[in-house]
Amino acid sequence: MSSWEAYVRKVVPYVPGEQPKQKDIIKLNTNENPYPPAPGVEKVLRDFSADELRLYPDPEIRDLVDAIAEQKGLASNQVFVGVGSDDVLAMAFLTFFGSQKPVLFPDITYSFYDVWAELFRIPYEVQPLDENFSIVASDYCKANGGIVIPNPNAPTGVEEPDGVLEEIIRNNPDSIVIIDEAYVDFGAKSVLPLIDTYDNLLVVQTFSKSRSMAGSRIGFAMGNPKLIQYLNDCKYSFNSYTMDRLTILLGKAAVEDQAYFSEQVERIIDTREWTKKQLQELGFTMPDSKANFVFASHKRVDAKTIFEELKQRGIFVRYFNKPRIDNCLRITIGTNQEMEALVAALKEIINQ
Amino acid sequence: MSSWEAYVRKVVPYVPGEQPKQKDIIKLNTNENPYPPAPGVEKVLRDFSADELRLYPDPEIRDLVDAIAEQKGLASNQVFVGVGSDDVLAMAFLTFFGSQKPVLFPDITYSFYDVWAELFRIPYEVQPLDENFSIVASDYCKANGGIVIPNPNAPTGVEEPDGVLEEIIRNNPDSIVIIDEAYVDFGAKSVLPLIDTYDNLLVVQTFSKSRSMAGSRIGFAMGNPKLIQYLNDCKYSFNSYTMDRLTILLGKAAVEDQAYFSEQVERIIDTREWTKKQLQELGFTMPDSKANFVFASHKRVDAKTIFEELKQRGIFVRYFNKPRIDNCLRITIGTNQEMEALVAALKEIINQ
Repeated sequence: MSSWEAYVRKVVPYVPGEQPKQKDIIKLNTNENPYPPAPGVEKVLRDFSADELRLYPDPEIRDLVDAIAEQKGLASNQVFVGVGSDDVLAMAFLTFFGSQKPVLFPDITYSFYDVWAELFRIPYEVQPLDENFSIVASDYCKANGGIVIPNPNAPTGVEEPDGVLEEIIRNNPDSIVIIDEAYVDFGAKSVLPLIDTYDNLLVVQTFSKSRSMAGSRIGFAMGNPKLIQYLNDCKYSFNSYTMDRLTILLGKAAVEDQAYFSEQVERIIDTREWTKKQLQELGFTMPDSKANFVFASHKRVDAKTIFEELKQRGIFVRYFNKPRIDNCLRITIGTNQEMEALVAALKEIINQ
Repeated sequence: MSSWEAYVRKVVPYVPGEQPKQKDIIKLNTNENPYPPAPGVEKVLRDFSADELRLYPDPEIRDLVDAIAEQKGLASNQVFVGVGSDDVLAMAFLTFFGSQKPVLFPDITYSFYDVWAELFRIPYEVQPLDENFSIVASDYCKANGGIVIPNPNAPTGVEEPDGVLEEIIRNNPDSIVIIDEAYVDFGAKSVLPLIDTYDNLLVVQTFSKSRSMAGSRIGFAMGNPKLIQYLNDCKYSFNSYTMDRLTILLGKAAVEDQAYFSEQVERIIDTREWTKKQLQELGFTMPDSKANFVFASHKRVDAKTIFEELKQRGIFVRYFNKPRIDNCLRITIGTNQEMEALVAALKEIINQ
């Protein structure tokens, strides 16, 4: 070991889902959107000249911040933009979770939360979901250094019942409560209206799922102006030009086309509901997902076997080898055609 | 004050140079390249379909890492890519500067170093440059928790004499030494060949200056595979998909056109040398810059006055209101035409 290694920040990094390079696969493993971004995005690409890349982007990402604010009915100083919601969440952990008390989040959840806590040496304590994969509100009403809850949750797709999140936010005036709404657009209720009431609430959303732009890396947070200012201060202390010139314009075009957005989201919801029925008929059970994926387990065939059999057939889904969920598969909702192919393959596998 | 504010990470953020929105100005304030990126970059833009944005990018940024490695004659596991060299440097501070001993860097230097140290609560100690704006090697041969030295330095443009950096690297086997070579392509000598000899050396470069892609946010670091692995582990613990799909391809196209790169760099060097002579004739003095800017002060008219007078004429340069350099202007090298306009304006201002 080299002597300088003593001072290296050693971490166990997050492992993202596979990004296979083959073109002829059905990719249902990373919750991407099967439909292209809004037509305005293509138009921005066609009109953009490479010469513009020689100049730094606007460090305030003003065009995109303003467009999001307008679409959400907010002031621009209530919106923070980052390079994907992972960047936003990382910055929020760094900015807000400086207490010695533990940050709280569910045991079954987005597997990046504990990675950020470990990276920044933030103490944390996971709170077990109940047997229906719902949070227990009282678990989040004890001393803590911050709270992060995804709604709907990943990888379960479960939406918390109305009122539960507000109860937690109201009971924690001394902590920042982050509600991670990466999947909220697929039929769940956002807590966004609560940011005017609670100055400790940060709502995080993304362009990666409902806006078909995972490849562009755009995420954003909404909260009261003081929260957003603190986030920006840390962002400017980390990297002042985080978002490239072109992506700012692409994001703006996407957010401005609300009609296209709603139409794609509805299509995915329809396909999800169809998929649920098909899977149930095949003997799968699953919580009632409000996201662009389902989280299914089969009564007879174990998840790992199904995962591998699907992969052999060129269908990629996500399997987590973790306690309590190691018999579940997270299956992204693709096009109708893709889901029909999935159901056909599952029929084969189940009836082998 | 809200009670949660006690645990907020409070910082004084870096302030980037102005990015004025007017189109009819001469922008010599943020060291951008006046020429467009390589023609291949435009071609990638024309061929790229928005539909590709719906999928996550390759988290390993493989296409771009491989292209840089090939151009530099390295193995791919010796290269780390980030969202601008600021992102690379921020990640390197977070990863490597975990000692309780102070990190060392010059007093006159890139004004982001102390911002990162403050953000991550890293102790640091600035070392004064000598009267010629050169580092004093012995200042960097005492107990420390890491070293970061830009070469050529910014905002001075000064290149350290041959051998000085190697002496420092060799004398610090227990610390990571970062050489920040953002401006090295404009005629200075890179320490890159030393990464095979010293496992504590990290060399950081960028596409923002010599490759005309400030607007794309691409920076990279080179070092031994162990260093790069540690950097990647922290990166994957912060944000696994940092670089968008399109930027990866744009960067690859830029790095593959070495002929265009050399030609643009030579043009800027020629213009710089012409500019130096003109400024000297007007009574300016300046260190011998090896960067794409000069750092000039006038014997009679103070820098702040010149800065403001230039701004009134639509010419933006950079002025730092800081000890030792508050009578200097950092002037980016633009096109010949832009520098002629600058010289004409300066003549007017000086002779008022």
